[in-house]
Amino acid sequence: MNSTIELLLSHRSIRKFEDKPVSDEVIKTLVQCGQAAATSSNVQGVTVIQVTQDDTREAMAKLAGGQPYVASAGAFLVYCADLRRPMNACESQGGEFSAGMMEHFLIASVDVALAAQNTVVAAESLGLGICYIGGLRNNPAEVTQLLKLPQQVYPVFGLCLGYPDQSPEVKPRLPVEAVLMKDNYDESTQDALRDQYDAQLREYYKTRTGGNKDSSWSEEMRALVGKESRPHMKPFLADQGFATK
Amino acid sequence: MNSTIELLLSHRSIRKFEDKPVSDEVIKTLVQCGQAAATSSNVQGVTVIQVTQDDTREAMAKLAGGQPYVASAGAFLVYCADLRRPMNACESQGGEFSAGMMEHFLIASVDVALAAQNTVVAAESLGLGICYIGGLRNNPAEVTQLLKLPQQVYPVFGLCLGYPDQSPEVKPRLPVEAVLMKDNYDESTQDALRDQYDAQLREYYKTRTGGNKDSSWSEEMRALVGKESRPHMKPFLADQGFATK
Repeated sequence: MNSTIELLLSHRSIRKFEDKPVSDEVIKTLVQCGQAAATSSNVQGVTVIQVTQDDTREAMAKLAGGQPYVASAGAFLVYCADLRRPMNACESQGGEFSAGMMEHFLIASVDVALAAQNTVVAAESLGLGICYIGGLRNNPAEVTQLLKLPQQVYPVFGLCLGYPDQSPEVKPRLPVEAVLMKDNYDESTQDALRDQYDAQLREYYKTRTGGNKDSSWSEEMRALVGKESRPHMKPFLADQGFATK
Repeated sequence: MNSTIELLLSHRSIRKFEDKPVSDEVIKTLVQCGQAAATSSNVQGVTVIQVTQDDTREAMAKLAGGQPYVASAGAFLVYCADLRRPMNACESQGGEFSAGMMEHFLIASVDVALAAQNTVVAAESLGLGICYIGGLRNNPAEVTQLLKLPQQVYPVFGLCLGYPDQSPEVKPRLPVEAVLMKDNYDESTQDALRDQYDAQLREYYKTRTGGNKDSSWSEEMRALVGKESRPHMKPFLADQGFATK
């Protein structure tokens, strides 16, 4: 155990921030930390767009399903998977870009997540709080239009950053025994571990909400994967030039 | 600047390791650090399989395109996107799993990357070196078979971990001005910044290889995105139950 590991283990999303901007210098350092993460074949398939206009941030807060901290956090970044830069580089060498490959889509999306997580760790090491905003994928075409994203670029998620004005508890995760396996995928203990986690998470919600939220992980998962989630994503991605073959 | 940010900025992949295993206790802590990362709607779509059998590690080294450190690193983990656990949870509540959603595929793949990057940062904070192995996607069906991955689980990448036996330079990245934009996607300065980076990377390769490698980023990108990359990924993913709608 060391201070970095303690920092990682103490992560929780922050959704209430002080009314205090994050300086351009800090943002630049955080994005550079993101760039320092591994990237598949050095493709660096990431563009970060900082949204600074109040009206655009208000619009994004609504597009994300009504998340006011998108507008009120010290800074708001949109993480975009970007194959346009490598495409242009390829074409500058007389190559012909192979559009729509699932593999390239995956490479760029994973690059975005690796970079963003480094930025998050750096931000938290400076005392900032963060919240990922997957809700931007509720309305990805509108977000794409607002940010004037060209073909071969798409918004993967947003990231709120700011000085925390709350201190929520760390949310319990699945037992590590459920997610770490040796040599083979093994389902033999999954049901028992899930029952254990269901009970733990129910208790966490009850305590945190003074009894108002009474739910287990399995109930949450029924709501999440028991329905068609964002069925517009596949056609949207295809329109932007991604994941068609 | 602080020690965490210095750590992040000093990342480089390690491909040569001391002949020394990474203890089970350390692996467990590193995976727990991964679990502490943000996860979309708490889905925790990640399973980590530690490959401990020598013959399986040798096989994976070959399947990854001939990367001997897959077999020789102190530990080798395969990061799997896992929708099977939430599927089972959903079904335990009487729900019906909505298979094949592109959105769920993206959620699980991003979850994997966020968790892995936390594990990487934790590992490096302990003095370990790492190397991501995207090469597992050269032969994902064979990897899936070796690890007995069921439907709704797929291997996103591998991760070598171990005590470094080399100390390569940090590889230069694109200028931060190229990847950080304000309010809109802006291509006006991209060509000039790419030229600058092409020259810088060429110099880095020349110095590092004693003049043997003479290549720019644009040339690398022509080789990478100027051809169909892993065209088997889309049908493979569909076979495993991912990203069909």
